[in-house]
Parts: sequence; structure tokens; C-alpha cells
Amino acid sequence: MPPRVSTVEFRVRYAETDQMGVAYHANYLIWCEIGRTDHIRGLGTSYREMEEQGIILAVSEASLRFIASARYDDMIRVETTTARVTSRTIVFDYVISNAQSGVRLATASTTLISIDKQGKVTAFPAAMRARLARDTGDAS
Amino acid sequence: MPPRVSTVEFRVRYAETDQMGVAYHANYLIWCEIGRTDHIRGLGTSYREMEEQGIILAVSEASLRFIASARYDDMIRVETTTARVTSRTIVFDYVISNAQSGVRLATASTTLISIDKQGKVTAFPAAMRARLARDTGDAS
Amino acid sequence: MPPRVSTVEFRVRYAETDQMGVAYHANYLIWCEIGRTDHIRGLGTSYREMEEQGIILAVSEASLRFIASARYDDMIRVETTTARVTSRTIVFDYVISNAQSGVRLATASTTLISIDKQGKVTAFPAAMRARLARDTGDAS
Amino acid sequence: MPPRVSTVEFRVRYAETDQMGVAYHANYLIWCEIGRTDHIRGLGTSYREMEEQGIILAVSEASLRFIASARYDDMIRVETTTARVTSRTIVFDYVISNAQSGVRLATASTTLISIDKQGKVTAFPAAMRARLARDTGDAS
Repeated sequence: MPPRVSTVEFRVRYAETDQMGVAYHANYLIWCEIGRTDHIRGLGTSYREMEEQGIILAVSEASLRFIASARYDDMIRVETTTARVTSRTIVFDYVISNAQSGVRLATASTTLISIDKQGKVTAFPAAMRARLARDTGDAS
Repeated sequence: MPPRVSTVEFRVRYAETDQMGVAYHANYLIWCEIGRTDHIRGLGTSYREMEEQGIILAVSEASLRFIASARYDDMIRVETTTARVTSRTIVFDYVISNAQSGVRLATASTTLISIDKQGKVTAFPAAMRARLARDTGDAS
Repeated sequence: MPPRVSTVEFRVRYAETDQMGVAYHANYLIWCEIGRTDHIRGLGTSYREMEEQGIILAVSEASLRFIASARYDDMIRVETTTARVTSRTIVFDYVISNAQSGVRLATASTTLISIDKQGKVTAFPAAMRARLARDTGDAS
Repeated sequence: MPPRVSTVEFRVRYAETDQMGVAYHANYLIWCEIGRTDHIRGLGTSYREMEEQGIILAVSEASLRFIASARYDDMIRVETTTARVTSRTIVFDYVISNAQSGVRLATASTTLISIDKQGKVTAFPAAMRARLARDTGDAS
């Protein structure tokens, strides 16, 4: 079974451009966060609810490969998948592309670690881990 | 007695530019926040400590006039003064200029309202109000 | 004839929150920019095309009044109208609200000045000024 | 010979915090950019001048490992080194720490590719490549 892919689209804001005339690279991490929020919503919960329940996902690693530029007012598409779930971490993969042309702009991966409101690393509740893991499309 | 003026300087970040080749206008509100943080530190406290004590300053009004552009790597100077203090509000004025040329880039004013951790409007403690008001340079 | 109102909606990004737990105030200027971009698109052109034709709109004044807070994942609605057009300036008004509850979060106004690619203030072409002015809903 | 290390310090802005009460992770890429700008200045040129001469450095890859949190008003230190230089790319490494406590907050690496004003990949001029490479502290 292939992993679930969620897709979200939005336009590049003027605020996100830089003097090279393209979207500044750090914004891609924010776009990943939008993809991740959307992907978690597809699980039937929301990251907002997770936080209210005291399960906070803090980014512990991120890697990005930039392939082509995004410009102001371009429609961006972020496709998010869950790559891996362990007792305390979850890895999301992202493909960022131009929604009009289909051109791939970047790929990225982020590892998130589960912490509580005091910032202590904590295991996912079993039901949540099962739900998160279902998304990866295999028995991981 | 003239009001106390505090001065802070920093460089324009590449991230702050937009495709016009200048610093994006919303960043000026962030620069005002840097000036304000610095100005409060000059009172012998810090905004961080104020928040830890449960006195939160939320921006309720802001106005800005943009006069000239700032460019990447320009050294920016923010001069902050306290314009007015009431039982529950404080108004800061800002002059933003190019620190090298002295050219004035913008003027701004923000009104902040004192709230507690629950977001309820609350009066400044008397000692703090007195300390804040001393800065305005008159008997207000 | 009432002025044309354009409406755009989007969710508050995690990146836009601050440690008060609400959307940081400077983001509202970015949200106004999203409203403005959308409003100009409703004219049958786009701000991107205007810039490509050498008509650049630089923000010369901004004022904001903050009424209530926006939180992560809230759906935000920005309603934009053209308040006034002169030979070289255009004033946009914004009402920012929570799209779910209808609660008004902020009102804002920005004045933009027409400049060319060299940064020189320049009058709008007559046809564009007429088109922009039609939106104000009167004979201004 | 060890590589040259450049060090720059600045405070965490309120705007950079998120509702977890810490600096939002995407800002670390901006902090790397500040380190990089500072590091290039130490070469006796500046990135601003490089761009004016038509040598643009676009980020093609980035990786970050987040170790500990940064909080509002913390003094941040970014130490930047040049890890590797090829005919068309340069890799910078960063160590981000709390300047007061010395605690390491993050490590990061970015690969930048040399492009011209049209966005075409282009080799560094020989003199610049030599100058950039001298920083790596070996014969690479």
C-alpha cells in the first residue's frame, strides 16, 4: 500500500520574495509546516488539537534540496507524506512544486520529536502512534 | 526635560529584502519591536522580565510613514522614545534611519496595552507606571 | 454605488504565531498585502503584471488597529476595498476577521505610491487610473 | 592550518518566537545567512558587492540539526566556516549557540551555487575562488 499523500496549494506572497526576485529559501521550511499541518488534519485530528492535548512536535532535523525558483504570485503545491514513525519521532517528506507548470522546485524532509509542555521528550500515546504509522503505507 | 532616547543599530538581513530590492515594509514593525525591547532594557528591567511577571504588552495600534528605502546590509538605526503613558497603555515613537548616511527612512508610532496572561486588559502596577512615565520627559 | 469588496481567506501559519500564543502583529501587514494582491486581480490585471509593465506600488503609509487576536490554524478573512485614488497614490482599506466566528480582528489602511523601476514617483497611466478609480464606487 | 571561523552575535527577536515559546526553526536558516554575510565580509569583500558584480550565491542545499531551544532576548552566536569550495559551489558550516551559556543550539550546513543575474550556473572567477578557498584552511 502506498503512503497517503496530502496536497495543499497557496500563492507565493510578496513578503516571501527577496532581492534575487524569487522566494527566499527559508520560506520553504514554512511551506513544509503548512504541508505538515494539512497532512495531520487528514488523519482526522489537527496539530492544533494535538498541542492542546499536550503532544508537541518539535523539529529536530531538516534537510532541503532546492531545484528551481518560485516567484511572486506563483501557485505552489506541497505534497506531504509520512516517511517513518518511531515511538518518539516522525519523519515527513515533502515535494514542493509549481502547481501550474508541475515543475519540481524542492524536496525536503523533517524529523519531528514528540515533547510535552515542559519540553521533555515523550513517547506518542499508542493510539496516536498507530494512527500516524498507518499513513506510511506499510507495516513500519 | 526631554524624553529619554534609546538607540539600537543592526544590519538589514537578506531575508528582509523583497523583489523591489529593498527591505519589505512589514519588517519595520519588527524593527520597532527591537527598538522597544532595547528602550525597556534602558529602564533597568527587560520586557522578558515583565512578561515573566505577567505584564504583557500587546500592540493595539500602529502607524508608519515610509520616507526612503533600506537596502540589504545597510546599517539601520532605531531611535525610540516613550510618548505617553496611561494607566493601561503606553505609546512609543520611533525614528528609523540609515546609520551611515543619517537619512531618515521612516517614522512610526505604536500603542501597547497592558494585558495579563489570560489576555485581560489590566492596569500597570503603580511602580512600573511611574518608571515608564519618567521616560516621557515630563510630568505626564 | 458601493465600492467593490474582495475577499480572500487563508489559515494562520504556525510560523506566524509568537510566544503570546497569537499571530504576531507585523503579519497583519502581510495579510493586507495578500488582500491587496487579490483585490488587484479582481480588476482583470494582476500586481505581478503591473510590476512587469514598470508600475510599482510602494507602501508609503500604513495604519493598523488591532481588536482581537488570531490563533494558529484560525481561518482568516481579509476584505479589501479601494478607498481613494489620486494621480500617483492609491489607498486601500482592509477589514481582517475570523472567517469562522465573524469576529473582527483588525482594521487597516495603506497608502501606496506609484514608482517606476528606478524608484522615481510617477503618475499612473490614465487608463489604469480610471480602472483603479472605478473600484472606489464613486466619481473620485 | 585550521579554517577561519567568523563569529557574529545578535538577540532573538520577539517576532522570531512561536507559540511553543521558542525561536521558530525556520529562523535558523536566516541566522545562517547572517553568519554567511559576516563570514564573506571577513574576506575583504562583501556579499553585497559580489551581487553587484554579478556573482549571486543561491542556496541549493541546506541541512539543520536542532539540539536545544533559543528564547526571546537570548543572545545568539553563529560561528561560520567555509567547508568546501568547487568551481561553482561553496559549502558553509554553522554552529549556532547561546552566547551567554555556551550551550550548542544547532548545527547546519548550506551549499550555495554561483549563478549570474540571469540565473544561469556559472563558475567563480579564478581570483574569487582562490580567495574563498583560502578560508577552508587547507589546499582544497
